[in-house]
Amino acid sequence: VKDLSRYQYELQLLAHVEDMMLSLLPDTASTIREAGYHHLTAGGSRVRARLALQAAYALGLSEQTSVAISSATEILHNASLLHDDLQDADTVRRGKEAVWQKFGKNAAVCTGDLFISASYAALACCKNERLNELVAHMHYNTEEVIVGQQADLEASDYSQQAYEKIAMMKSGPLLGLPVELCLIAAGRADSISTAQQASYEIAIAYQVTDDIQDMDQDREKGALNFTSLLVGSRDEVIAQAKVYASERARKAKRLAAELPHGSGRGLDLLAQRFVDAN
Amino acid sequence: VKDLSRYQYELQLLAHVEDMMLSLLPDTASTIREAGYHHLTAGGSRVRARLALQAAYALGLSEQTSVAISSATEILHNASLLHDDLQDADTVRRGKEAVWQKFGKNAAVCTGDLFISASYAALACCKNERLNELVAHMHYNTEEVIVGQQADLEASDYSQQAYEKIAMMKSGPLLGLPVELCLIAAGRADSISTAQQASYEIAIAYQVTDDIQDMDQDREKGALNFTSLLVGSRDEVIAQAKVYASERARKAKRLAAELPHGSGRGLDLLAQRFVDAN
Repeated sequence: VKDLSRYQYELQLLAHVEDMMLSLLPDTASTIREAGYHHLTAGGSRVRARLALQAAYALGLSEQTSVAISSATEILHNASLLHDDLQDADTVRRGKEAVWQKFGKNAAVCTGDLFISASYAALACCKNERLNELVAHMHYNTEEVIVGQQADLEASDYSQQAYEKIAMMKSGPLLGLPVELCLIAAGRADSISTAQQASYEIAIAYQVTDDIQDMDQDREKGALNFTSLLVGSRDEVIAQAKVYASERARKAKRLAAELPHGSGRGLDLLAQRFVDAN
Repeated sequence: VKDLSRYQYELQLLAHVEDMMLSLLPDTASTIREAGYHHLTAGGSRVRARLALQAAYALGLSEQTSVAISSATEILHNASLLHDDLQDADTVRRGKEAVWQKFGKNAAVCTGDLFISASYAALACCKNERLNELVAHMHYNTEEVIVGQQADLEASDYSQQAYEKIAMMKSGPLLGLPVELCLIAAGRADSISTAQQASYEIAIAYQVTDDIQDMDQDREKGALNFTSLLVGSRDEVIAQAKVYASERARKAKRLAAELPHGSGRGLDLLAQRFVDAN
């Protein structure tokens, strides 16, 4: 019953998060409003929004602060998707046309810009005395993602080490951010580095798992894939990659378990997806 | 002597602002760091940084808050330049290659993204109890600029009214922002709308003045120019446009004079440039 009520509470707050994200679109009729609406209503599993709500609940944060952190991290992630799709020329997102494909490249740049700014506006809805720290930390993680994205766009010759570093930088900071901001808001900044390490491990496990699934497709396109960094037959490299992803996911689970008051439960569940996956 | 010491104080703080902006570039060697450095060290008159310092001084804000607001608004403006140059395919900025031209389109998107995020990190260096409001207001103005930029990129058939609205939205919010944030920090949010109106008038006066200078060039390119919305001979439309810009600039001066404790002095000096200009 306790788990059920927690789950219901999470769903209720998730509805507030959806409302807050939509409320941050421009009021007036405009391409930016349409493009933002198109993107936000295309679905998406709201992994980062849920991670924030789970950690906020565990740490006893207020409803207002929980929704603010959850919305901020989810919008920021969606900003990164808008600009990623443009830069990678990916035409489909969540089964619908990507924003740049439907509304043009200029609109995709502008809508992504709006989302970055809106993520800080969402965060500022926190009623928390540590807003300075929250903003500074969100920027720190954003910077890392941007540097990682650019490194990925430029990379040509990957070593396994370079692959890992880019996978960590591209995805880790926005996965850890929801939990890290909750830790800051709850006065537990001492646990940030543990959350960061856990999110880096999940980022690698996620990317390797994704690569196993996209293996044949990537080979056709000549795109980078983790399995192409390994030596052996097709079955051998798949087996190696699976073991690798599982090990990183298990490490993430150990780290998540160290976070205070069960605030790493969401990261643990996420990591679990990549243990013996595929 | 009082004016001299005020001017010296402003120059001293402006040096801190330059330091803060550079300190917000990534520490590690990366294209983003190079591109950001290339852009920030290309000069620029730092109009918005100075507007903030002037208003902050008039309103008695602390050095730390003055530098934070000044840096935030200047970086945000530079973010808009990075993405504008990309969208307008302008190859030169401040006598140097534009970032997209030198470092590529992807790097320009990423560096502009970093600058947007960094502007909030700079603002969060304020020691001010109204940080929530400051962040919310900076986002509000950012949204307006983004919607204005997109409207400008899409516009084909301009009326004078449409021209004015776009000129106001594109430039006004980032000109008024430095002063508006200082008013909020000083507990004078009641004067925000006056500062906004003044900045809208300056935005129009600036754009019209700019158009008079670029008149022949724009006619060759078939680009929109205010003078092409007027009826008459070349000399007649120039004279009309000058009168128009002067009237808007004078209106801005009257509004700036209403701001508390002389905090509109910077806006007044800026507006003065467009009175009987060209």
